[in-house]
Amino acid sequence: METLWDHRFAQRTQAMTSSVIREILKITAQPDVISFAGGLPAPEIFPVREFAEACDTVLKEKPSEALQYGITEGYLPLREFLARKTARDGVTVETDNVMITTGSQQALDLIGKIFINPGDKILVESPTYLGALQAWSAYGAEYIAVPADEDGMQTDELEAALRSGPKLIYILPNFQNPTGVTLSLARRRRLIELADKYGVPVVEDDPYGALRFEGDHITSVVSLDAQMRGQCSGCYTGNVIYLSTFSKILAPGLRLAWVVAPPQVIFRMAQAKQGSDLHTSTFTQMVAYQVACDGFLDRHLDVIRSVYHRRRDIMLDSMKSTFPEGVHWTRPEGGLFLWVTLPESLNATKMLAAAVENKVAFVPGTPFFPAGGGENTLRLNYSNATDDGIREGMARLGKTLKQFIK
Amino acid sequence: METLWDHRFAQRTQAMTSSVIREILKITAQPDVISFAGGLPAPEIFPVREFAEACDTVLKEKPSEALQYGITEGYLPLREFLARKTARDGVTVETDNVMITTGSQQALDLIGKIFINPGDKILVESPTYLGALQAWSAYGAEYIAVPADEDGMQTDELEAALRSGPKLIYILPNFQNPTGVTLSLARRRRLIELADKYGVPVVEDDPYGALRFEGDHITSVVSLDAQMRGQCSGCYTGNVIYLSTFSKILAPGLRLAWVVAPPQVIFRMAQAKQGSDLHTSTFTQMVAYQVACDGFLDRHLDVIRSVYHRRRDIMLDSMKSTFPEGVHWTRPEGGLFLWVTLPESLNATKMLAAAVENKVAFVPGTPFFPAGGGENTLRLNYSNATDDGIREGMARLGKTLKQFIK
Repeated sequence: METLWDHRFAQRTQAMTSSVIREILKITAQPDVISFAGGLPAPEIFPVREFAEACDTVLKEKPSEALQYGITEGYLPLREFLARKTARDGVTVETDNVMITTGSQQALDLIGKIFINPGDKILVESPTYLGALQAWSAYGAEYIAVPADEDGMQTDELEAALRSGPKLIYILPNFQNPTGVTLSLARRRRLIELADKYGVPVVEDDPYGALRFEGDHITSVVSLDAQMRGQCSGCYTGNVIYLSTFSKILAPGLRLAWVVAPPQVIFRMAQAKQGSDLHTSTFTQMVAYQVACDGFLDRHLDVIRSVYHRRRDIMLDSMKSTFPEGVHWTRPEGGLFLWVTLPESLNATKMLAAAVENKVAFVPGTPFFPAGGGENTLRLNYSNATDDGIREGMARLGKTLKQFIK
Repeated sequence: METLWDHRFAQRTQAMTSSVIREILKITAQPDVISFAGGLPAPEIFPVREFAEACDTVLKEKPSEALQYGITEGYLPLREFLARKTARDGVTVETDNVMITTGSQQALDLIGKIFINPGDKILVESPTYLGALQAWSAYGAEYIAVPADEDGMQTDELEAALRSGPKLIYILPNFQNPTGVTLSLARRRRLIELADKYGVPVVEDDPYGALRFEGDHITSVVSLDAQMRGQCSGCYTGNVIYLSTFSKILAPGLRLAWVVAPPQVIFRMAQAKQGSDLHTSTFTQMVAYQVACDGFLDRHLDVIRSVYHRRRDIMLDSMKSTFPEGVHWTRPEGGLFLWVTLPESLNATKMLAAAVENKVAFVPGTPFFPAGGGENTLRLNYSNATDDGIREGMARLGKTLKQFIK
């Protein structure tokens, strides 16, 4: 059987790999392991009652529309709702700027489909979100890695990197996956100036922006770009493609996200989406709209922020009391993740086996580095485990670390 | 604005076009036009009550699972259900043979992603399903067109076409879109023999197979392939990738379909799907499973078949009494479409404007021919209009035809 298929697959499949994280999640899925490896929201605060009511309403009031084929760009009232919502951040956005996608992962895939020729370079922060690398490597992308620190991508290294001619800049400005750090306002401004100067579009991936539980909101890159261009009415026609998602503010099981971009980009993405899945589920779009349309989202975000705030604090406190000296970590002001740096001599991938023996799991940092490195780093998720689970898990991880750090 | 983006798009977007049909649907969407142009199921028989109950049950019994991230290959009980369902047609299928996709359009896209290098040739029936051409052209596919008649693809022309080295054979064996014709048993056997001889995989796209309302079921190509190989237990490991969907047997608004293929192909498709949309909505998968698992599907199929049977009969009778001489059409034994051939001198695309003036619409046949031709053909859908709508619409179309055929 092997020989029947092996030679048939396309060249691009050579670049395709299963997500390292998904493989790790399988290993760490033993029931008695406390896992900080995934990136799952807290399921106990999913708005289940609101979903049940919304399903009921949608199927009572508009069953034929909800179960029928829909428009590729998405359910119109939801697009209008998202245009209004985006405009609150200071960028004027019209319905033609908005498209619904089957999760942000699909938006990344469609961006790959319409922009990337094999060999094109994408400028990314290092470390960066693995799912983007996975989506774009399938189209033959290569990467230029710009290092990041506690304020996000180091924009003083950006201009040199831009001179090598990247096709796109990819950035997660808020509570970045994997590090949890946030791009400062000054660096956001510098980013859009340089992107404009070199004529390179910016993909702003913002799944966590609404999950800030500490500090002040920083204006999005797309809004700063609109302001720089003096665009204060009509369609947004600037240089940024903005992505966000319902996965972290309602529920990931719906597979619902959205893109804000110039109409010309939306047009091409919709063309590509026709060939990819025709359209995103009409039913889940209408249910999400029904749940979100009356201001529920703002009330629900308060709940999520308060839970994640508490869990981050528990994790930070537990780390402080149980981790040995020489281990450092970020202090995210929102989102789902924090980032741990071990002494340079240590290898987090090798340490994972010992951790799993101690019934605790994390994701080693190396897969997030497109150009290699980061062997002594690891990512921890604080949104999914319970409060007590975090305390016990950090104790187990501290114990593991002490086996390596004397 | 135009210049900011125009030069940025990838070469492959040159091959990307909006579906001609979607553009036509916009023109023909005036409320007083009776449209036979789309491919929509009858919404009045969507099982709305069953969906509402299933949403309720799923959100009561498994809310955390339904709204959370899920496995790329799909919800396990649904995959097991589909493996058992497929096995009823005489091919032994295990869970590892089955993957859930976001509509069959996604399965076509993933097949393009894992198989097609730019310039690869795909062997198709002519005319064939436009969505497949759209999905694969984005990966640089070219097409070898084999003509079809009342018994489907003319397999006596297949061997010559196979000698030119296609990467895949694509076929819709049952009530084909756009023609409504069905591939005969003898030709199915010939197809799998030749595909095996030349080592070319077959993509069997079967959205309508369960919608036979007349005549006898013909064994699927994947089952015949398994039988030819003497595979009567274990995983299917043959030469066919089989696609089917819930869009025509439950509701298209869910975007739920499935693939049956050798595990090696499923593995690669799942890798590609991770980068495309991570996984299909857990919620819609669980709702569909809840609706389908207790035998409801068989009862519901009886309803769909009976409605489509009646509507096909009304359309055929109306055409017979109102169409002028010299016009011919197919007599599908199931599915959603029939195919009209006008006298050779006529052009269906030009005739569409006159039809819309007479408040009736169809899809001209040419876009379905990958190598051109078919100017005198058109497709009619009989599943979506009401009984009276079909009678009135055919009278209007007959009137239009008589303006051209004296």
